[in-house]
Amino acid sequence: MSAVNRPRAAVVVTGSELLTGAILDRNGPWLSRELTGLGFEVAHLQLVGDRPDDLVRALDRALVDGCELIVTSGGLGPTADDLTAEVVAAFADAPLELDEAMYERIAAILAGFAARTGFGGPALDAANRKQAMVPRGAVALDPVGTAPGLVVPRPGGPLVVVLPGPPRELQGMWPAALAAAPVVDLLAGVPAAEARSLRYFGLPESEIAATLREIGADRDLSGVEVTTCLRRSELEVDLRPRPGAGDVAAALHAELALRHARHLVSADGASTDELLATALRERGWTVATGESCTGGMLAARLVDLAGSSDYVAGGVVAYSNSAKTGLLGVPAEMIATHGAVSPEVARALADGARERFGADVGVGITGVAGPGGGSEAKPVGYVCFCVTTADGQVLARDPLLPGGRTDIRERSTDVGMHLLLRAARGSQPA
Amino acid sequence: MSAVNRPRAAVVVTGSELLTGAILDRNGPWLSRELTGLGFEVAHLQLVGDRPDDLVRALDRALVDGCELIVTSGGLGPTADDLTAEVVAAFADAPLELDEAMYERIAAILAGFAARTGFGGPALDAANRKQAMVPRGAVALDPVGTAPGLVVPRPGGPLVVVLPGPPRELQGMWPAALAAAPVVDLLAGVPAAEARSLRYFGLPESEIAATLREIGADRDLSGVEVTTCLRRSELEVDLRPRPGAGDVAAALHAELALRHARHLVSADGASTDELLATALRERGWTVATGESCTGGMLAARLVDLAGSSDYVAGGVVAYSNSAKTGLLGVPAEMIATHGAVSPEVARALADGARERFGADVGVGITGVAGPGGGSEAKPVGYVCFCVTTADGQVLARDPLLPGGRTDIRERSTDVGMHLLLRAARGSQPA
Repeated sequence: MSAVNRPRAAVVVTGSELLTGAILDRNGPWLSRELTGLGFEVAHLQLVGDRPDDLVRALDRALVDGCELIVTSGGLGPTADDLTAEVVAAFADAPLELDEAMYERIAAILAGFAARTGFGGPALDAANRKQAMVPRGAVALDPVGTAPGLVVPRPGGPLVVVLPGPPRELQGMWPAALAAAPVVDLLAGVPAAEARSLRYFGLPESEIAATLREIGADRDLSGVEVTTCLRRSELEVDLRPRPGAGDVAAALHAELALRHARHLVSADGASTDELLATALRERGWTVATGESCTGGMLAARLVDLAGSSDYVAGGVVAYSNSAKTGLLGVPAEMIATHGAVSPEVARALADGARERFGADVGVGITGVAGPGGGSEAKPVGYVCFCVTTADGQVLARDPLLPGGRTDIRERSTDVGMHLLLRAARGSQPA
Repeated sequence: MSAVNRPRAAVVVTGSELLTGAILDRNGPWLSRELTGLGFEVAHLQLVGDRPDDLVRALDRALVDGCELIVTSGGLGPTADDLTAEVVAAFADAPLELDEAMYERIAAILAGFAARTGFGGPALDAANRKQAMVPRGAVALDPVGTAPGLVVPRPGGPLVVVLPGPPRELQGMWPAALAAAPVVDLLAGVPAAEARSLRYFGLPESEIAATLREIGADRDLSGVEVTTCLRRSELEVDLRPRPGAGDVAAALHAELALRHARHLVSADGASTDELLATALRERGWTVATGESCTGGMLAARLVDLAGSSDYVAGGVVAYSNSAKTGLLGVPAEMIATHGAVSPEVARALADGARERFGADVGVGITGVAGPGGGSEAKPVGYVCFCVTTADGQVLARDPLLPGGRTDIRERSTDVGMHLLLRAARGSQPA
C-alpha cells in the first residue's frame, strides 16, 4: 500500500551548555515523543547555542524541511544571551510588545522569590520586563517558573511554540500550549497516531527483526513504521501506522505479542514499574530490599511512583560486610565461605530484608559492579539476585551483566524489578 | 577587545529511532564534549532520520554555518536505509569506489560472524561490498564492529568524519579518526581550549547575570564566552576564552569566585560528588544514610563513584514509620508528637544511621514528596534534613523545595550531598 505521509514538526533546543557536552538535553527527546504521539513525523531535532544567527538558521531549516510546527525550548531567561522570543518574533515578522498583564503576573512571582531569598532589586525588574515581551499576535502562556511561553503564528506557516528550557517548566507548560487556539486549529488537521507498543524482557532485537522479515514476506507492512528500542535488558517495540494503516498495525501488534509471549512484559504500553505496583497492590503485598552493588537504586526506583508507601516497606543498603551481618543477619561464616557476592548471600539479603521489615516479598542483590574487585571466578558484571516471598517462592539468578559500572548497576536494578514482578504475579521462574 | 572566534564544528547524528523519543542519543553529547575539548566551537548538533534529503540538508547547514569540521554518527550499516557514506560522497563530490583491502578486512570479520551464527551467503557478501565502498580521496578507518569509518575531505572544506552509530564503536574509532592525516592537519590550526568553570550551590542565575553586567560595564568581556547552566540547585558557570582572551577569562574567573564565595562549591570543575569523596577520604570518614522520601537515591548516588566502598558504610530506606523505629531507633513517641516529617525525626534518622552502621557521619532525610500527603503546616515539598557527625557537628535544614515528586526527591538528594560536603569539610552551617 502507499501510505500518506504525516505532517512534519521540528524541535529546536537552545543552550550553549548543551553543545559543550556539559549537560544532556532532556527536552528534545521528550518533545519528540510527544509530537510523535500527536501524529507528527519529527523531521529533525536541532541543538543550537545562544547565538541569534544560529537560531535564525535553525528556524529557516525547519521551514525548508516543510515543517508545519516548530517547538523551541530554552532562551527565555533573564540574561542577555536568552533571545529566543526576539528571534522568533523576527521570524514571524511580528514586533515585540510589553504585555502589561504578563508583566504584573511575573512581578508577583518574582516578589515571592525576592521575599524567600533576599535577592531582588533592579536586576530583578529588568528580568521581569524582558520576560514580559510578547510578539504581536502571539498567545502568551502563563509561566510555570518565571518565564512565560509563547505560541507564535508565522504568516504562511509554520506555527512556533516557544517553551522554557528547564524540563519541569517545559513539561508543565505543555498542556497549556496544546490548548492554545492556534495549536488546537493545527492539531485538528493531524491524523491520529494510535501507536501501539510491546515491551519485552530478555529478548534480543534480532529476534524481532527476523519475525518482521518473516511476516513481511507474506504481507505488506510498509504502512507501519516499526521502531525497536533496546533499553538495557528491556526491548520496546513501537508500531506507528501511517494514515489508513491502522488495521495492518493492529494485526502486526497481535502477532508480535503472540509469537514472543514468553518474553512479553506488556502489550499496552504499561511500564514494568506500573505493572509491579499493580501486582503488589492486588496481592496486598509489601516489599523490602537488601542491596549491595546497586546501593539503593532499586529501593529508589520502587519509591519513584506516587503512592508507593502502600507497598514499599523499606530497604537496607548493606554495602559493607558488617552491614550485611549487622543489619540483615547475613551470617559472617556464610560471607567467609561463599564470598559477599554469592547466590547464598543474595538469598540471605532477601530473607533478611523481608524479615527485618516484616514484608511479604524481599529482594537481595549483591554483585561486582567494578571497575575493580573482579576475579576469574567472579568477574566484573557478575551479579547475584534472589527474591523470596513469605509464601515460599524463591527466584534466583546470577547472570554476568555487560558494560561499565553504571550499566551493571542499572541493569541489576532492571533484573530486580522483573524478578519482583514475576514473584508478585506468581509465575514460575523461566 | 575583539577576540578571534574559534573554528566551528558540527555534529550530525542519524537514526529515525532518535526522533520518536524512544531512545536517547548519547553520541551527540559525547562528540560535542570531545570537539569542545579540542578547541572547536560546536555550532550545532542535528539529529536527523534515515532519509537522504534530510541528511543532505544537515550537511549543507553545517557548510552555511561556516563549520570546518563535520562529524556524523550512524547510517553505516548493511541495510538499505544506511546511506551516510553515499550522501557524504556526493557532498564531497567524490565517487564511491570499492576499497579492496577494506573488503578483505570486513570479509574476515564477517566470516567469524557466519561461523558463530550460521548466517552467511550472498546477503552477507552484499553487506560486505556495501560497507567497503569508500569515497575517492577519503581515508577509511578500520572497523571496531563491522562498519569502517571515513575521513572525507570536501574540496574547499569542511572535512567530514563519518563514524558508526553504536556508541562503543564510535568511541572506539575516535582515536583513529584523530590520527588520520587530514584531521591532524586541521587540528594543527585549532587554538587550544582552556575552559574554566565555577560551581555554586543555592545561587540564582540572575545574580551571576547581574555581576557580569556590572563587571562588563568597566571591562570588555566579549572575548569570553560565558555559559551558565542551572541543574536543580546547582549553578555551573563555564568561561571559554576566544583565542587571545585567556587573561581576561582568568581574571573574570577569579572575580566570580570571590564575589560569590559563600555559595561557591568548586572553581576547578570538580563535581560535588568528587569533592565529597575526596573530603571523606581525607578525613578517613565513613558515611551512613537514613532516608525516607528519597527512598535510597542518596545512598545510590554515594555509591555511584568507583571505590566508594572506602567511605560508604550503608544506609536504611525507612519508608514506613515502623521501619524508622525498628531499624533506626526513631522513638515512636517522637513520630507521634512531631510527625514523621519533622526536624526531630530527621536528626533521629541521621543519628540512628550513624550508630547502626558504626559510621562517622550520618544523614537523615524525611519529607513530603507528594503528590499527596501534604498539609497546610507541612505542604508538598517540605523536606527535613539533618547531618550529624561522631565529633558532634549537627547541620539541619528544612526547606520548602519546588517542583513535582521527582524534582523534590532529586533536589533533596542534592541538598543531602551538599550538607554532607559541608560537614566533611568541617565548615560551619551558613
